[in-house]
Amino acid sequence: MFDLEGLRRDENEIANWDAECDVLVVGGGCAGVCAAIEAARAGARVIVLDRAGGLGGTSALSGGLLYLGGGTPIQQACGFDDSPEEMFKYMMAACGPEPDPALVEPYCERSVEHFHWFVARGVPFKPAFFEGAHEPFTSDEGLTYSGSEHVHPFNQIARPAPRGHITQQVTSKGSLLMKHLVAAAETSGAETRLQHRCEALVVAGDGRVVGAVVRSPEGEHRVRARRGVVLAAGGFIFNDEMVQRHAPHLARCRAKVGTENDDGLGIRLGLAAGGEAIRMDTGDISLPLFPPNSLRRGIFVDREGQRFLNEDAYMGRAGEFVLLHQGGRAFLIVDDEVFVRPELFPIEIAAVAESIAELESELGIPAPGLEDTLTFYNRHAKRGEDPLFHKGAHYLKPLVTPPFAAIDLAAENAVYSAFTLGGLRIDARGAVLQPAGAVVPGLYAAGRTTSGIAKQGYSSGMSLGDGSFFGRRAGRAAAESG
Amino acid sequence: MFDLEGLRRDENEIANWDAECDVLVVGGGCAGVCAAIEAARAGARVIVLDRAGGLGGTSALSGGLLYLGGGTPIQQACGFDDSPEEMFKYMMAACGPEPDPALVEPYCERSVEHFHWFVARGVPFKPAFFEGAHEPFTSDEGLTYSGSEHVHPFNQIARPAPRGHITQQVTSKGSLLMKHLVAAAETSGAETRLQHRCEALVVAGDGRVVGAVVRSPEGEHRVRARRGVVLAAGGFIFNDEMVQRHAPHLARCRAKVGTENDDGLGIRLGLAAGGEAIRMDTGDISLPLFPPNSLRRGIFVDREGQRFLNEDAYMGRAGEFVLLHQGGRAFLIVDDEVFVRPELFPIEIAAVAESIAELESELGIPAPGLEDTLTFYNRHAKRGEDPLFHKGAHYLKPLVTPPFAAIDLAAENAVYSAFTLGGLRIDARGAVLQPAGAVVPGLYAAGRTTSGIAKQGYSSGMSLGDGSFFGRRAGRAAAESG
Repeated sequence: MFDLEGLRRDENEIANWDAECDVLVVGGGCAGVCAAIEAARAGARVIVLDRAGGLGGTSALSGGLLYLGGGTPIQQACGFDDSPEEMFKYMMAACGPEPDPALVEPYCERSVEHFHWFVARGVPFKPAFFEGAHEPFTSDEGLTYSGSEHVHPFNQIARPAPRGHITQQVTSKGSLLMKHLVAAAETSGAETRLQHRCEALVVAGDGRVVGAVVRSPEGEHRVRARRGVVLAAGGFIFNDEMVQRHAPHLARCRAKVGTENDDGLGIRLGLAAGGEAIRMDTGDISLPLFPPNSLRRGIFVDREGQRFLNEDAYMGRAGEFVLLHQGGRAFLIVDDEVFVRPELFPIEIAAVAESIAELESELGIPAPGLEDTLTFYNRHAKRGEDPLFHKGAHYLKPLVTPPFAAIDLAAENAVYSAFTLGGLRIDARGAVLQPAGAVVPGLYAAGRTTSGIAKQGYSSGMSLGDGSFFGRRAGRAAAESG
Repeated sequence: MFDLEGLRRDENEIANWDAECDVLVVGGGCAGVCAAIEAARAGARVIVLDRAGGLGGTSALSGGLLYLGGGTPIQQACGFDDSPEEMFKYMMAACGPEPDPALVEPYCERSVEHFHWFVARGVPFKPAFFEGAHEPFTSDEGLTYSGSEHVHPFNQIARPAPRGHITQQVTSKGSLLMKHLVAAAETSGAETRLQHRCEALVVAGDGRVVGAVVRSPEGEHRVRARRGVVLAAGGFIFNDEMVQRHAPHLARCRAKVGTENDDGLGIRLGLAAGGEAIRMDTGDISLPLFPPNSLRRGIFVDREGQRFLNEDAYMGRAGEFVLLHQGGRAFLIVDDEVFVRPELFPIEIAAVAESIAELESELGIPAPGLEDTLTFYNRHAKRGEDPLFHKGAHYLKPLVTPPFAAIDLAAENAVYSAFTLGGLRIDARGAVLQPAGAVVPGLYAAGRTTSGIAKQGYSSGMSLGDGSFFGRRAGRAAAESG
């Protein structure tokens, strides 16, 4: 068969194979390494390819958060009551629009088992709760709220429980997670080939994926995969053209979360083999203003001086609201008592003034829009109430201490960070699906190469979470197929 | 080659062809018929397939609006000054995020020529301007504002000109348009086959599309297309599964604009042949509250009683703002002087009250949110000003005459109408593109089978507009290829 994109070759063209295995895993981040471990445990001979000089990918650079729940030992030790049902309710409300219950349900049902699987691979979690803003950047607690479970409106939809599970280490938490997983993959007998880039999938006459053409510094290799190929090659945030074509709003975010290998190759390989890509417009859009939490006592306002979101929402929800729903323009209004510099990224101050009226005027907000907003907010905040957006009482404080300031949240002036969430459509076993719903025989995928549990709404830990969960499943399904 | 979806067959499988032509057009709506006319004019032997019992498709059921400009004779006769440059500025601002200049630029540059092409095919346009709300439903004027050209913020970006060109007839305007185009196709010598469904594209060993397998009530036919196939088979609003998977917010719209044949078959055929689908989340989302224009003197407010959009914006912009940015929840606040029942669809009244405070309370808006909003709005409206959203002065009137009412704009209670805008990626010649950018040889597309000039932001007439424009180009390019 002619190869429309160079990403697919006909089996007939392959005169001989240079290497053989049962399961070929493309990409050695969290998803790929978990696939390799499980495929090898199921008795398969496994080869893991990675384009980089070492395994780990974007996962190794990450905060090491895993979104787990349903009543894990860490949750219990920290005194939180959770169940798969409450976790499911939260995720179906927070991961939309229209998260796929076929993926979310097993993810919740088997989350405690998944936690134990990590522990069995030596990954340490300290049974201590971090009270801060979504991630313990300078300490080693094992559990935190990593989404909006405990804030409005989600605390009305499902019983709140923290589900961000973090590897026990003060820094380089993602690196620690991957160290243990890579060690487990090596122990399992999976073979690793670094600086190997998958250039094409090899497809048999009946449509089955039977191997890959791979390029290393030594040249081209044809690797037969007797049972299946798992695509776990990351997302496409570092492919400007794909971002512009599919998710152009993400191009407005100054910080890209990923490595240069997040160029969409895995998705394109899957498409070339007959898979379908879905929700390619979606992405995590974070506005990392917090920590410190003090700033949550300020208020978000739009260009008209109106509030639009409870300020205790997860930074991914805040980013999404400003960039997608406010056209990428908003301010965080603070007073002298509340203001501290954010720890993660620099900020720009749009205006400082001795009165709200003056601040309003400097921001070009038609009077008395901002004054009305502050009057209303302060009156209720004094009583510990937020009738508009239901921010938690501990962040409610009248903003009355001059000078007042507006932190500029315009996309071009604030640091938004982004990675892609769209990708190949998979079933609950990690099999890649064709547009009409049948599987592409012999092809599996996991992690950001796929559209996973988060279809737009995101909470920290969901990417390592679904990458590892469906990576395991994909590895096992591949090993058991054929 | 094995056919993963049944939508692609290898040329080797085709022992003999049942029919031959130069250009095969799949779908006989506006895009397909225009492709057929131009392919035949270029000397090609053309066959047009349609699954229905007659040509016309969704186009024949439409309002017959064509988005044309740059200085057409109708614009000139009505006293409006327009240029391709101003049209381009509007479209690049209004058709995003990130409309494709490679499509928008020729669309604007050649729009006057495109107008003359319709006139040469006998399509009548009355040189009279309709002042109403986006479409003359009960009269026959030939020109109207069909988008937001004349309202904020677009009137600050480009010199406003109306560009909705409408066929001259009081009702069934789309049907009249298609009558003339179908007659032109017949005159051109294109052959029509009705009740013929394209089941698969036939692809040669070098990746070129060389024909199709077609099913009619008489059975299966293999049709060779020596120069190319044009996919013009509509969008996917009537395919629930595709909508759910790619554009789930559109499923919240009660009215689907299309026919049952808008099931995405054209897009899926293009994917199977190696094309790429982009911006599959996008769609026109209209909130057809107007006519009558009187209601524009009311104000949109969100659940907190805050305004969020100038009420004189195009109904597609209003629908988009409420459904995508306000979570599908909003009200239109009116007083007794302003209120009249909309003409197109029924509405639900969320509350009626003798005072704004009472209305606010009935709507569950925390006081004094709505009162503050009205106080501010009324104070400025009295002076003919709208400092927040810059609604046109003729729609500004203090809302002070009880009883006051709130029209419910919740997605489940108001009629939103929708059709899909995502589809195959094409170049300016109408050639279908692969993910990495090369064309799929022998394959062309136009209309709602493609992602066209409107990447989310929409103005009426853009679908017949780009369908006809790129349909013509696709037909010509196919006829001249090979």
